[in-house]
Amino acid sequence: MLVRELQRKLSIARGERPAERLFKNANLVNVLSGEIYRTHAAVDDGRVVGLGDYKAKQIIDLKGAYLAPSLIDGHFHVESSMLTTREFARAVVPHGTGVVVIDPHEYANVLGLDGIRYVLESSKNLPVDFFIMLPSCVPATPFETAGARVTAEDLRLMIGDERIAGVAELMNYPGVYLGAESELAKIEAGKGKNIDGHAPGLRGRNLNAYVLAGVQSDHESTELAEAQEKLRLGMHVLLREGSTERNLATLVPLINSHNAMNCSFATDDKLAGDLVSEGHIDHCVRKATRMGLSPMAALQIATISTARHYRLRNFGAIAPRYWADFIVFDSLKKLVVRQSYKKGILVAEDGEYLAAEPALVPRPRSTMNLRCQAPGDFKVCLKRAARMRVIEVVPNQIVTRQFLATPRTEGGQAVSDVARDILKLVVVERHRATGNVGVGFVRGFKLKSGALGSTVAHDAHNVVVVGANDADIGRAIEELVKMQGGQVAIKEGRVEAELGLPIAGLVSDRPLKEVIERIAALNAAARAMGCALEAPFMTLSFLSLSPIPELRLTDQGLIDAVRMRRTKLFA
Amino acid sequence: MLVRELQRKLSIARGERPAERLFKNANLVNVLSGEIYRTHAAVDDGRVVGLGDYKAKQIIDLKGAYLAPSLIDGHFHVESSMLTTREFARAVVPHGTGVVVIDPHEYANVLGLDGIRYVLESSKNLPVDFFIMLPSCVPATPFETAGARVTAEDLRLMIGDERIAGVAELMNYPGVYLGAESELAKIEAGKGKNIDGHAPGLRGRNLNAYVLAGVQSDHESTELAEAQEKLRLGMHVLLREGSTERNLATLVPLINSHNAMNCSFATDDKLAGDLVSEGHIDHCVRKATRMGLSPMAALQIATISTARHYRLRNFGAIAPRYWADFIVFDSLKKLVVRQSYKKGILVAEDGEYLAAEPALVPRPRSTMNLRCQAPGDFKVCLKRAARMRVIEVVPNQIVTRQFLATPRTEGGQAVSDVARDILKLVVVERHRATGNVGVGFVRGFKLKSGALGSTVAHDAHNVVVVGANDADIGRAIEELVKMQGGQVAIKEGRVEAELGLPIAGLVSDRPLKEVIERIAALNAAARAMGCALEAPFMTLSFLSLSPIPELRLTDQGLIDAVRMRRTKLFA
Repeated sequence: MLVRELQRKLSIARGERPAERLFKNANLVNVLSGEIYRTHAAVDDGRVVGLGDYKAKQIIDLKGAYLAPSLIDGHFHVESSMLTTREFARAVVPHGTGVVVIDPHEYANVLGLDGIRYVLESSKNLPVDFFIMLPSCVPATPFETAGARVTAEDLRLMIGDERIAGVAELMNYPGVYLGAESELAKIEAGKGKNIDGHAPGLRGRNLNAYVLAGVQSDHESTELAEAQEKLRLGMHVLLREGSTERNLATLVPLINSHNAMNCSFATDDKLAGDLVSEGHIDHCVRKATRMGLSPMAALQIATISTARHYRLRNFGAIAPRYWADFIVFDSLKKLVVRQSYKKGILVAEDGEYLAAEPALVPRPRSTMNLRCQAPGDFKVCLKRAARMRVIEVVPNQIVTRQFLATPRTEGGQAVSDVARDILKLVVVERHRATGNVGVGFVRGFKLKSGALGSTVAHDAHNVVVVGANDADIGRAIEELVKMQGGQVAIKEGRVEAELGLPIAGLVSDRPLKEVIERIAALNAAARAMGCALEAPFMTLSFLSLSPIPELRLTDQGLIDAVRMRRTKLFA
Repeated sequence: MLVRELQRKLSIARGERPAERLFKNANLVNVLSGEIYRTHAAVDDGRVVGLGDYKAKQIIDLKGAYLAPSLIDGHFHVESSMLTTREFARAVVPHGTGVVVIDPHEYANVLGLDGIRYVLESSKNLPVDFFIMLPSCVPATPFETAGARVTAEDLRLMIGDERIAGVAELMNYPGVYLGAESELAKIEAGKGKNIDGHAPGLRGRNLNAYVLAGVQSDHESTELAEAQEKLRLGMHVLLREGSTERNLATLVPLINSHNAMNCSFATDDKLAGDLVSEGHIDHCVRKATRMGLSPMAALQIATISTARHYRLRNFGAIAPRYWADFIVFDSLKKLVVRQSYKKGILVAEDGEYLAAEPALVPRPRSTMNLRCQAPGDFKVCLKRAARMRVIEVVPNQIVTRQFLATPRTEGGQAVSDVARDILKLVVVERHRATGNVGVGFVRGFKLKSGALGSTVAHDAHNVVVVGANDADIGRAIEELVKMQGGQVAIKEGRVEAELGLPIAGLVSDRPLKEVIERIAALNAAARAMGCALEAPFMTLSFLSLSPIPELRLTDQGLIDAVRMRRTKLFA
C-alpha cells in the first residue's frame, strides 16, 4: 500500500470518514480468536479496515447471518476440471472459494514454463486468487515422452514471483529420501517458500528422511495412522476430497483440539460437474462437521490454517488489513454458502455467479505435434503363437493389474477381441513429432464397437485411444488432431460425442455449462458403445501413468510399473 | 545445510548408519500433533533426524520422562536483567529456555546501532538462541536526551540479518494509528518480517487503525477484554509475566481450544534474581496450567506458537530437521525442568548450568560522558514563595501522580524534606556532555539520609539520583562516573553498596551470582536508609519515563506526561 492510501484507510479505521461498505449485524466467524459473535465489518478498497461500529457509504445488513472468511483449497490441479481458470471460478465461487493453491503439473508437462506462465497470466483479475506451486516432477518418469522438462534451475528462475507459493509435490519421494542431488536441488530452489510433498503410503524411517530433507506437507494419506505419523513428524497434512480420491472421512479423526493449524483441505483433482453439483471446500467443511468436527475447527482448516501454511498474506481471516474475502451463510450446521464476496464485492449469490468477466488471455501455442496417424501404424504382427501382457483396469482405482492372454488374430495380426473384452490400446506421442507409438491391449472397457480417445493422459499427456477396431482408433486420432486436443467417442467412423481441449490438449475453451454437458455426452456415448466404467475417459487418462503399478502403456511401449522398466507385449 | 551433510543425515534417518545420540523411551510432548506418547528421538549434529527406533552411538534413556521442545520467550529486554547474555543464559537455561526474542531497546537508546551490534555479537554461541527485534522508538520521546537516534533508514540497514526477526514494539502507537510517516516508514522497513506492537489500553477504532497499519502483536494487555479485542483483530497476544508487570493470571482465560497458536508467553522485563528463583517461561507454563489451561496448550504457547509467529525456523517442536533443543521433566503437572539440551548437548541438569563458556566479546565503548557533576548544579533557587510540582510514586505501578507542595527552604533554596518525604531528584545527561541537568522532587522513597543513584533510567538512561541532601547526590554521581555506570547507595559520603554496570551503564560484567548479591545489598542499603519501596532502584529507573503519565523528570526538566510537554517546577 502506498503511504497516502494507507493514511486514508487509517482515517477510516479511526472513524473520521465513512468506509465504502459496512457489513452490519454479522455473526462473525473469527478464526483468529476462535469465537463467533455479533459485530460489524467495515471494508474499504478491498480490505477490512475495522471491526465494530462504523459509518459507511453502503450498508449491507446481514441480519445475523454468519460471516466467515472465504474458503481455501490447499492443493489443486486446475487442469483436472478441464476448465479455464475463469470457468473454474464460475464453478467454485458460488461455493465460497476465495483462494486456491494450484500445482499446474499437467500444463507444465505439456508446455513447460510457458504453461506455468499461461496459468499465472490467465488467473489474474478473477474472484478467486490463485497461488502457484511450481511443478517439481516434469517429466514424471523417463518412460514417457513429455512436452517439456522442468529443472531445479527453472524453479529458481520462477520462484521469486509473489504469486509463486513454493515447490509443488515432490512425487519422486524415493529420490528425495535417498538424497538424489536433482531432488535436493529442487528443495533448495524453494528455500524460504513452501515445499509440498507427495508420499502415498510412506512410513517409518524413509518418511523421517523425506521430512528431514525439507518436505513440509503431504496430501496423499489414505489411512488415519499414516496421516497421524506424517503430522507427528511435522508435515502439514492436507485432507483430500476430490472426484475420485476421497480420504476425508478416513482422516477427520486426525484432528484434535491442538492441531487444526497443521491441517488443510484439498481436492487435488476434481471434475467440473462435481465442483458444481457437490461443491468444493464447502463440501469438505460440511462433511467434516457432519462427522463431528467442530465447525470452528473445520472453518479454521478451510481458511487460516491453509493461508498461514502457504504464507498467503492477508488471506484466511476477517480482521483489519485482511482482504475482504467473505462468505455469508445462514446455518452453521448446514453451511450452504449464500453469498461470496471478493475484496468486498459481491461475486456470487444463491448459486449464481456475478463476477465481471476479465479480459481473455490468448491461448498458448498448439500442442498437437504428431508424426504418425495412419491406422497401419497400430498393427501388431504376430510371428508365432505367444501370450501377451494385457493391462487390466481395476474399477474405481488408479492401479492396474497385468494378466496374460492369447491374442485374437486376424491375418497374422493381434487385434481387439470384443467378445473377451481385450481391446487394442494405442498411445501416440504428440509433443515433438517423434513418431513414437505404443500399442498394447486393455481389459475393462467392454466396448462392443468404436473407439474412445483423449489427449489428457497422465503425466505426459500423449494421445491415448482404446478401440474395438483399428479404423475407429485411427479416426479418433484424426479427430483429436483436428480439435487441437480433446476427448472423443467414435463409432463406425462417426463422431458420437466430443470435447475440444485446445488449451494444451488439457483444457476446454468453452463455458462451464457446455463443458459439463459435453462430458456427460461423452460418457453417454461410451455407455452406448458398451462401456460399463463409471468415468471411462478418466480411466483412459490414467493408463499411461507410468509411476503407478502394475502395467502401463506409454508412447515408449509397455511399462512394467512394478519393476519400473520397459517390457514387451509378448511374454 | 550442505548437500553432502544433508545426504549423510538422510542415511541416518533411513537407519543405514547410527545417529550420534538417541533419546530413548521419551514421553514425547508433540506440539505439532497435539499428543503425548512414547517414542525415541534420534539426534545428529544438533538436529533431530528421526522419531522412532534408531541405532545410535550414545543412548540417553529417559525412562518415560517427558521430552518437550525448549521454551521460548516472545518478548524480553535482556538488559532488564542487568546481565550479559552469557550470564542471562546461566540464569534461564536451567529453567528450560532455549530461545529468546529480544528487543535491545535500552542498548539502542544508549549506543544506537552499536548497541544492537554488540547484542548480536555477544549472543552467539550460547545455549540460548537470541533473535532480535530492532528497536523502533529511539529516542522514546523528544523530552529526554538519549545516546542515539534510530531511524527507519537504520532499520532497513539491519533488517536483512537472519537473526533479526523484525521491528520491535512500536511504542509511539498514536503516531502509528494517526499515520505519522516516520512510524509508517518503520513498519515498511520491517516488511516481510515481524512488526511488534505496544499499545497499553488501546481499544476500539484506534486499535483497528493500529492493526491496519501493519502491527502484528501486543504484549501490553492488562485486562482480559483488552487482550480479547486485540486477539480478535488479528494481533498475536503475548501474555506477559515479568518481575513487576504480571498479567498472566488475568489473561489465561483468553485461551480457548481454537486460538493457542495466536498466543505467546513473554517476560518483557525480569530481574536476575527473579529469573533464578522463580523461573522464566517455565514459570508461565506452571502458572497457566495451575489455572486450568491444558498442559498441551500451555506448552504449545511456550514453543511452537511463538516460534511460528516470529518465523524462528526449525525451533519450537521435536521432529525431523528441527534443532534438538529439548527439556526433560518428570511431572506434567509440576513441570520442573530436570534437564535442558541445546542442539542435542546437555546444558543444564537439576538447576546446574553445564554449558561451555564462549569467548568473551569486548565491551562496547564507555558511555559515561557527563559535563556537570558539582553539587552546586542541583541548587533550586526560590525567588518567591510558590508551590512546586512533586512526583508521587505509586507503589508497584509504573504510573506516577503529580501533587503540589510548598518546598522546605534553606538559604533561599528548595531542599529535600526528609520529614515530609519530599526528596530532591536529579537527572544528569550522560551521553553527549550537554550539561543538561533536570532537578525536581519526589515523594515515596522515604530516605532519611543518603542518596540512591542509577544509570539505568528509562528510556534515555541518563543519571538519576534521589537524595536526602545535595552532598550525597553529588557523591552518587561521582561514584557512578567512576564505575562507568551502575547503581549506588551513598550515605554520608560513603558507598554503602554498589553494582557497576560498565556495559552501556545498563549491564554488569560480573557473574550472575555476584549481580544478584549486589542487587540484594543495594536494596538492603536503601532499606537501612529508610526506603520502604519493594524495588527502589527499579522505581528510580522509571522516574524519567516520559511517555507514561503523570509527571516525570528528565535531563530536560519536568515533563507533564499527560499533556506531553515540558512543565515548570513551580506552579
